[in-house]
Amino acid sequence: MNKFLGYRCSICKTEYPFTQALYICPQDGGNLDVVLDIATIKRKYEIADITSRNEESLWRYLPLLPVADPGGEKTPLRMAGWTPLYSPKPLAEALGLKDLWIKDEGRNPTASFKDRASAIVVARAREIGAEVVVTASTGNAGAALAGMAAAVGHKAVIFAPKTAPPAKVAQLLVYGAQVILVDGNYDSAFDLTIKASEEFDWYCRNTGYNPFTAEGKKTAAFEIWEQIIVRANPEYSPLSIFVSVGDGNIISGIHKGFKDLLALGWIDQMPRIFGVQSEGSAAIANAFNRNSEEIIPVTADTIADSISVDLPRDGVRAVRAATQTNGAYITVSDNSILKAIASLGKVGIFAEPAGATSYAGLEKAVELGKIKPNDPVVVINTGSGLKDIKTAMNAVKAAPIIEPTMEALKSHLER
Amino acid sequence: MNKFLGYRCSICKTEYPFTQALYICPQDGGNLDVVLDIATIKRKYEIADITSRNEESLWRYLPLLPVADPGGEKTPLRMAGWTPLYSPKPLAEALGLKDLWIKDEGRNPTASFKDRASAIVVARAREIGAEVVVTASTGNAGAALAGMAAAVGHKAVIFAPKTAPPAKVAQLLVYGAQVILVDGNYDSAFDLTIKASEEFDWYCRNTGYNPFTAEGKKTAAFEIWEQIIVRANPEYSPLSIFVSVGDGNIISGIHKGFKDLLALGWIDQMPRIFGVQSEGSAAIANAFNRNSEEIIPVTADTIADSISVDLPRDGVRAVRAATQTNGAYITVSDNSILKAIASLGKVGIFAEPAGATSYAGLEKAVELGKIKPNDPVVVINTGSGLKDIKTAMNAVKAAPIIEPTMEALKSHLER
Repeated sequence: MNKFLGYRCSICKTEYPFTQALYICPQDGGNLDVVLDIATIKRKYEIADITSRNEESLWRYLPLLPVADPGGEKTPLRMAGWTPLYSPKPLAEALGLKDLWIKDEGRNPTASFKDRASAIVVARAREIGAEVVVTASTGNAGAALAGMAAAVGHKAVIFAPKTAPPAKVAQLLVYGAQVILVDGNYDSAFDLTIKASEEFDWYCRNTGYNPFTAEGKKTAAFEIWEQIIVRANPEYSPLSIFVSVGDGNIISGIHKGFKDLLALGWIDQMPRIFGVQSEGSAAIANAFNRNSEEIIPVTADTIADSISVDLPRDGVRAVRAATQTNGAYITVSDNSILKAIASLGKVGIFAEPAGATSYAGLEKAVELGKIKPNDPVVVINTGSGLKDIKTAMNAVKAAPIIEPTMEALKSHLER
Repeated sequence: MNKFLGYRCSICKTEYPFTQALYICPQDGGNLDVVLDIATIKRKYEIADITSRNEESLWRYLPLLPVADPGGEKTPLRMAGWTPLYSPKPLAEALGLKDLWIKDEGRNPTASFKDRASAIVVARAREIGAEVVVTASTGNAGAALAGMAAAVGHKAVIFAPKTAPPAKVAQLLVYGAQVILVDGNYDSAFDLTIKASEEFDWYCRNTGYNPFTAEGKKTAAFEIWEQIIVRANPEYSPLSIFVSVGDGNIISGIHKGFKDLLALGWIDQMPRIFGVQSEGSAAIANAFNRNSEEIIPVTADTIADSISVDLPRDGVRAVRAATQTNGAYITVSDNSILKAIASLGKVGIFAEPAGATSYAGLEKAVELGKIKPNDPVVVINTGSGLKDIKTAMNAVKAAPIIEPTMEALKSHLER
């Protein structure tokens, strides 16, 4: 069954058939939405056909994905997604919320949300016979592509600026990817990736360029739907979902997931989607606040490196994720991101700065009255704190040093 | 239903009732085994009662655990365990094995195997009304205790030597644990922990001291049993299980898990258990090779810090895990551990040095003919590679740097 009909430009709405291998719209460079055969899916499947599937991964949603089954072998690609949804009562109480969930994407195979996109892109590459997948990345997207490709023995090439932290590069290398550092910035790596993919017929995974990344990322929306709405309580008022935003592709993917569910008639109202950006990297929030879809680049400067972006590559759809769902954009300071790392840590969730940004945004939204006590809220932690230990160290006070004696211990405790 | 009958010393076999709160045997200091009411469990439960449980965590084995249900709230403690079991064909082929699985414990909430022990110890602490749980640790055990305690709002105190890597200390602090660095080595932190737990009535989690850690760790055995033997094929010849060994508590816990299953009649043969130690930290392997249970301390020196142990605290039971199951001990060089990190990475599994040690051991066991092509093998990766990025960098070659041009790229690729 071919559920993948083609592409539709998010700007000019031109449609392209699935037989054309496309990235962005050839006419205006707009991000392309993948068009699914919703009518056939609707005829063929009911909710229970999905929720009863024996797949503890994002592949339980295969009937709603534009790729074929990548095969049943148990690999990290096959076992990406289906991350836990925690309900931390102390945080709900601190914020005065009735229902609060945190979706912990740090528990993906390479420890970030990006595994969802890379799993689908690698599956797509195999389907179209592309022997090499290439991406520009300094961080999670590269690690995810390297990890998912390694999982199924696919070749991955990663371009990163030579200034990328050696520790992040190490993860790419361990996964066996061919890593090439360029003497330039992220944008020059991005451009070289596109040129190389054209010339060598490599499949390009670049975020905000390849339409399939959002199709992977939408699976987080499906899981939120299944884990909360289907399982727990179909009576919930609209969920409010908080998502950290850098280039805008994750929030666009989550929006797409809920749009799919609405089109299928499996939900009858959209959740409200809140994008959270660092004040130092707020190109998309700026556009939202200007009531505009025009994304004006910034010179990004924030501790949250995974969402530090000068020129967001999926900005228009990211603005719409909020405007079309009665959501909003929130900006937060680096200091409140550090505090959010500590708040999440105290309930056992270790988030990287970009992962905690969404929670900092929720705190501010509550303060501003944008979220009411009865609003059910989901916060997405997009990556593990182990990805950025250095910043974590700035989020907490140093530990004291004592002599290893009971006297010293007692005197310390009495202080 | 009280399934927890009491303790039995692994050395002198003296039994103690469950009403006594004990750590090691008061008579000879031997590690205590937890004694379960196997007869009642057997009468009350069948295999399907376990495997049909709707719990994607180690708590699906609650009927076989010596603690009560910690409550159903979705927290990282409730969602520890039930880690994926990968079947990486390229590694099986490289080793000439018919069946090879890798259990990826890096996907636990705090990214190591130790969450299993800490989840059970924290549940026990709540049950006996101990307000504080304390442990000595420089690494995974401390992070796991801090994370599991934070998950349920329990107080944790961690003693670590002041030489502990700041990055590892950061994780403890983010989880909100009270971290106290001592001006001494691990042993002095260990001793201070015990003194403090006695004086302040804190519950002590120290590995190889608290009998409940092994009860948590045994859940990995249950998962291996369920994920392979129950689900896949009851006809398998005995599994061979490879476990990295430091203080000896993980291998003892896995042994205990299979002994429980054998006592219940749910398996009819024990797996063979292979302990793998670094050549630079081989106190338990040395005893095994001398056909002895006497553990002689070493001066440990290995890159695999999580299994770098001078004086293993659970050595006797660790030796028996191999001797009583027709298993063996294997020692491997630091260099082969680095190679194993790269081999696992190439199938998408990023392991810390101690986590890859088990795989290095399998490679050597195959070479030595201790494992035959038809032996079904399980290798346990005990922790995520993100825990030790520095060593990972030594496992791979550095990436090249080029100008961001197609000319430079082509010339690089042609080299």
